[in-house]
Amino acid sequence: MNKDNLNYFYEPKSIALIGASVKELSIGNIIIKNLVHYGFTGPIYPINPKVDEIRGIKAYPSIMDVPGEVELAHIVIPPPFVPEEVENCGKKGVKAIIINTAGFKEMGAEGQALEDDFLARAKKYGIRIIGPNCQGTINSDPKYNAYCNFTFTFYKPGSISIVAQSGGVGALIMQVLHDMEIGLRLYSSNGNGSDVSISEILKYYGEDEGTKVIILYLESLSNTKEFMEVAMEVAAKKPILAISAGRTEKGAAASKSHTGGLAGGVTMELIFQKAGILSFSNLEEICHAAIAFSSQPIPNGSNVGMITNTGGPAIIATDELVSCGMAMPPISEKAKAELKLTMLEQASINNPLDVVATAGAAHFKSAIEVMMNEEQIDGIYLTFVTPPFVDCVSVAKEIAEISKKQIKPIVCNYITDKQNWGETSKILADGGIPCFDYPETAAKALSSLSKYNEIRSRKKGSIKTFTDINKGKAKAVFDSVKAQGKEVLTAKDVYEILEAYKIPIAKWSIAKTVDEAVIEAEKIGFPLVIKADSEKIIHKSDVGGVAINIKNAEEVRTVVQNMQNKLQQPDLKFFIQEFLPESRELIIGVKEEEGLGHLIMFGMGGVMVEVYKDVVFKIAPTTDVEANEMLENIKSAALLNDFRGKKGIDKGKVSEILQRISTLVNDFPEIKELDLNPIFANENRVCAVDARIIM
Amino acid sequence: MNKDNLNYFYEPKSIALIGASVKELSIGNIIIKNLVHYGFTGPIYPINPKVDEIRGIKAYPSIMDVPGEVELAHIVIPPPFVPEEVENCGKKGVKAIIINTAGFKEMGAEGQALEDDFLARAKKYGIRIIGPNCQGTINSDPKYNAYCNFTFTFYKPGSISIVAQSGGVGALIMQVLHDMEIGLRLYSSNGNGSDVSISEILKYYGEDEGTKVIILYLESLSNTKEFMEVAMEVAAKKPILAISAGRTEKGAAASKSHTGGLAGGVTMELIFQKAGILSFSNLEEICHAAIAFSSQPIPNGSNVGMITNTGGPAIIATDELVSCGMAMPPISEKAKAELKLTMLEQASINNPLDVVATAGAAHFKSAIEVMMNEEQIDGIYLTFVTPPFVDCVSVAKEIAEISKKQIKPIVCNYITDKQNWGETSKILADGGIPCFDYPETAAKALSSLSKYNEIRSRKKGSIKTFTDINKGKAKAVFDSVKAQGKEVLTAKDVYEILEAYKIPIAKWSIAKTVDEAVIEAEKIGFPLVIKADSEKIIHKSDVGGVAINIKNAEEVRTVVQNMQNKLQQPDLKFFIQEFLPESRELIIGVKEEEGLGHLIMFGMGGVMVEVYKDVVFKIAPTTDVEANEMLENIKSAALLNDFRGKKGIDKGKVSEILQRISTLVNDFPEIKELDLNPIFANENRVCAVDARIIM
Repeated sequence: MNKDNLNYFYEPKSIALIGASVKELSIGNIIIKNLVHYGFTGPIYPINPKVDEIRGIKAYPSIMDVPGEVELAHIVIPPPFVPEEVENCGKKGVKAIIINTAGFKEMGAEGQALEDDFLARAKKYGIRIIGPNCQGTINSDPKYNAYCNFTFTFYKPGSISIVAQSGGVGALIMQVLHDMEIGLRLYSSNGNGSDVSISEILKYYGEDEGTKVIILYLESLSNTKEFMEVAMEVAAKKPILAISAGRTEKGAAASKSHTGGLAGGVTMELIFQKAGILSFSNLEEICHAAIAFSSQPIPNGSNVGMITNTGGPAIIATDELVSCGMAMPPISEKAKAELKLTMLEQASINNPLDVVATAGAAHFKSAIEVMMNEEQIDGIYLTFVTPPFVDCVSVAKEIAEISKKQIKPIVCNYITDKQNWGETSKILADGGIPCFDYPETAAKALSSLSKYNEIRSRKKGSIKTFTDINKGKAKAVFDSVKAQGKEVLTAKDVYEILEAYKIPIAKWSIAKTVDEAVIEAEKIGFPLVIKADSEKIIHKSDVGGVAINIKNAEEVRTVVQNMQNKLQQPDLKFFIQEFLPESRELIIGVKEEEGLGHLIMFGMGGVMVEVYKDVVFKIAPTTDVEANEMLENIKSAALLNDFRGKKGIDKGKVSEILQRISTLVNDFPEIKELDLNPIFANENRVCAVDARIIM
Repeated sequence: MNKDNLNYFYEPKSIALIGASVKELSIGNIIIKNLVHYGFTGPIYPINPKVDEIRGIKAYPSIMDVPGEVELAHIVIPPPFVPEEVENCGKKGVKAIIINTAGFKEMGAEGQALEDDFLARAKKYGIRIIGPNCQGTINSDPKYNAYCNFTFTFYKPGSISIVAQSGGVGALIMQVLHDMEIGLRLYSSNGNGSDVSISEILKYYGEDEGTKVIILYLESLSNTKEFMEVAMEVAAKKPILAISAGRTEKGAAASKSHTGGLAGGVTMELIFQKAGILSFSNLEEICHAAIAFSSQPIPNGSNVGMITNTGGPAIIATDELVSCGMAMPPISEKAKAELKLTMLEQASINNPLDVVATAGAAHFKSAIEVMMNEEQIDGIYLTFVTPPFVDCVSVAKEIAEISKKQIKPIVCNYITDKQNWGETSKILADGGIPCFDYPETAAKALSSLSKYNEIRSRKKGSIKTFTDINKGKAKAVFDSVKAQGKEVLTAKDVYEILEAYKIPIAKWSIAKTVDEAVIEAEKIGFPLVIKADSEKIIHKSDVGGVAINIKNAEEVRTVVQNMQNKLQQPDLKFFIQEFLPESRELIIGVKEEEGLGHLIMFGMGGVMVEVYKDVVFKIAPTTDVEANEMLENIKSAALLNDFRGKKGIDKGKVSEILQRISTLVNDFPEIKELDLNPIFANENRVCAVDARIIM
């Protein structure tokens, strides 16, 4: 996989269109129209045996009849004829094919057979294929002007590249950029993805120097591991902004399911997170963020300096910025002193800095310069309403001038009638100022830049190697379980495996008599909890059937005798277990995700997981940093620290268990599900009380 | 307060501008420009002693020199001269004044004095004032074309009316409507609101027949009760869509504070809720919703039928609709049978109904008609991308045709290049189809219509009158507390008040010896909980210092003896209290809100309120329906029902306590704070265990 491989899709020297048509409302006509309209720099060869020319361009009966070389061919003819034409392309020496035609594997077995057929032929000739059932590609580079696509959306050249698993969504994004007069670099809609994958396109974009930021729309992933590798590599070089469909629905479904099953809907989000992709849940936000990325530098932090010439929208922006995790630190005394000299009398010299509606170019210039020079400020948020009594053209010129220096990012909520304030708008646009209609959208775009800075500079941590684990012992257990053809492991098997991986388990035993209880208690060690166990007793604590923090044999004796006297059940037994004073109930789970590996879950146990879904996930293998993040990221993270007189739990031990579990499922990918539920944890000890493994 | 009162602002027959100017970049010139540009239907009188005419209109040295009657005057001169000109206006018989000039109470005491001065003079002559420090008003009715405002935003006549406490936000909203070619009815920016209030404007809009939907932007409320009354009255007639500033910031602050203090940031939201106002947290969403309201009928439910000619955007829309609480029920067999006859072969006949990209006018027509005829469908969500190979003009005509029948609302995610598909766009616009660029925004607009239906048809419930309360007894306690000059009530006072209002309190007592414990236990009744009480014992349960569900005197004796033997503390006492087996810990709080009355809070107690902020609020007086809603609306509502083998609590009793507390604070508005924390509740009994009242 390398850049050259896909070059013919984006930098073709010549293009043939197999299925070219004279009918204006047909794909076979529109692709030619688009190529011509954008001034494709090479020859175009319409292929149609029935006509001599299409849109004034000489047509050929067959690809074989084309006089020159053909690097890229579009195929838009019905499915049954596609394989043969791919064969012809091979004979002709075509390097790449975009099959726009739909009706292949998405329609069932017959279509799949046709797809397999053309793929085999393409492979034979070393041809790469985008599609079928796709729009195609676009390269806005004036050296090519290759609009190899049947959609209607126009572009101007720029630095944002789009890859979309849905042509509709791709067109929508392209249209938004066009409406906002923002340039496009490359575009790809690869439909069924029979050959060229999203990951390959992503890699190509990563290597394309003209691409400054990538927008990715995903519906599903076929080769997750390949995607993760490519995405990690590309995201380290330039921002990838991504959105996936079906997220909220999946999320809703996931939140309804139980432990282990909770992972489903969050998987894509976790993949994005692990790969360092900036994730969005909203098409508008992803488009706006891309616009900011395409022209603005990345800030080094999340501190915003706000400059405004109107009150209300700045208040709304402040709300939004703060709720996006941005801060608005006060400005320095030095800055205030300077601004007192340069601002109008009515100006409010703070952060936000209200220059007031009557402010002119000099006021804006000074305001932005002072903010830019403030060390604690990482980016500028500007509200600019165009007062009819101000020379706004001059204001815009000053803003554009400072922005061009690319010192710190500027994002603007620009409130104007663009038709009547065209000159002002053009100056801002030419200055590369990202302008948005709403304070909320402008604030979100600015905070996206900061989030990318966080992602870029985040610590990934390392995957710890545990030298004290006994992999062989665990392997023996798994082998034996496999030999027996079982899927659910017995408690004994589970405990042996956990022991081999040094995952602590609470010691326990069952006794029938006072004497037995004392013997078992001393084997386990103190303190202990003793629970009455009888079929007749449902709510143990309500009938005095639970005694905690038992510290010696004498107390065991008293407690068991009391329970015997009080409860008087013939089947009465006593469950004796290690007791952890002031412990919290935690939960750790693992679930296999097809094609990805395992997801590791951590959360508060008991009611917290059931009622508040207070759990977080990571993709295994989990680094030390990721394991620690899991502890910090649950909603009730405060409960793990000193809380209401209880000492904080030993978080290091919990983090270690998470990493040991990650190692276990990495060593034994055949594990389908694993649960440690509950885990009890206090400041001294952390141990699983119950565990379950399914292969 | 009646419509006539404000009529002169919106339907002036003549307008004078005191401070008219020949300088183009001045407010005194722009207002005239705006009035002229929009064709104000009455005479305009520029007032300026130094010039003969402004923009070709004869100017007068003083308002007193104007030959005809003046109904409305703008004042744009500096603050010190304003009072005198108001006086002159009074002498001249002016009915209403818009003071655009800033620099009054917002600048301090001097400005406040000027404001008081002009207000007194206006009152003397019965003149109403909008402003100062405001943009003014607009009435787009062609009978008036009264653009009494200095902003730059253009409009076309329509049915959306705007009232904004910030001119910047008002201009932004107006601009959005203009950009989307949506009509405006009335506009008001009342600045400092020295005389005419937001509530009065709201009432006027409520009575204005041309106003179909109202957009309200609020920053703060000075007369909350007046606002509540007016808003309730108007919201019953037409949708009020509102957004308030400072919400997220306040929300963040609120979430950090403790019980009682939690209410701050949510107050405005609660006011909107109680008044029946549709609340928004985002300017874009409020604008888009208003657009949908201005042309579409209100649906009778939240079931959506989706029609699309492209895949991806429909998936995204489905996600968004579902997460907005909308449902997408399957279509009937009858509908499927009909669609099988009318749709293209590749169409996916479901909900969403994918007519596929090649679908033409007939396919869309049938799809929409069939969906409209489905009884279980309340509204139509349409994704319409304009394929270049389809006759989109005909498609648009069909959509517009059906929409005009106003049977069920249609909202459209319209994906196109509006410049190149102008005819298609115009047909949709003329058909009143609300068209949005993004699936998410279209989905939100449609769900807003449904939310209004819910609000409109919601049960408000009634405020229960309790005949068993002893108000006199409570009054005696409050009077005595007041007489003592105290603010924090003693436990005895609190318990007497709660008793007078029949709010159940857990019975308890303290004993020092075994015998005392037995006597006290029998006074309270069984079952009981006994807790060891000693300064040396911090974590009672860990040392065996808590015994629950004690059922008789003998058990009391055993438990107390055991604790004495085990704990051996000289200061050891025994806290004896009613025990509620399997109870949940709840919390009820009350906080006074300046100018509003009281907020009542309900939530899960203990860790839930501290860690998850799992509480809800209502404004007192609380109806039975509202009290019940509080129980349903906490995140952990499921815990109040049968849960993990525990029986559900007696919700009726909790709801009754909420209503009794509401009655109490209504009877004694001097209560500043009240907490019942914790409250224990099980299936039989609900009682407060601790309570606190502050006056």
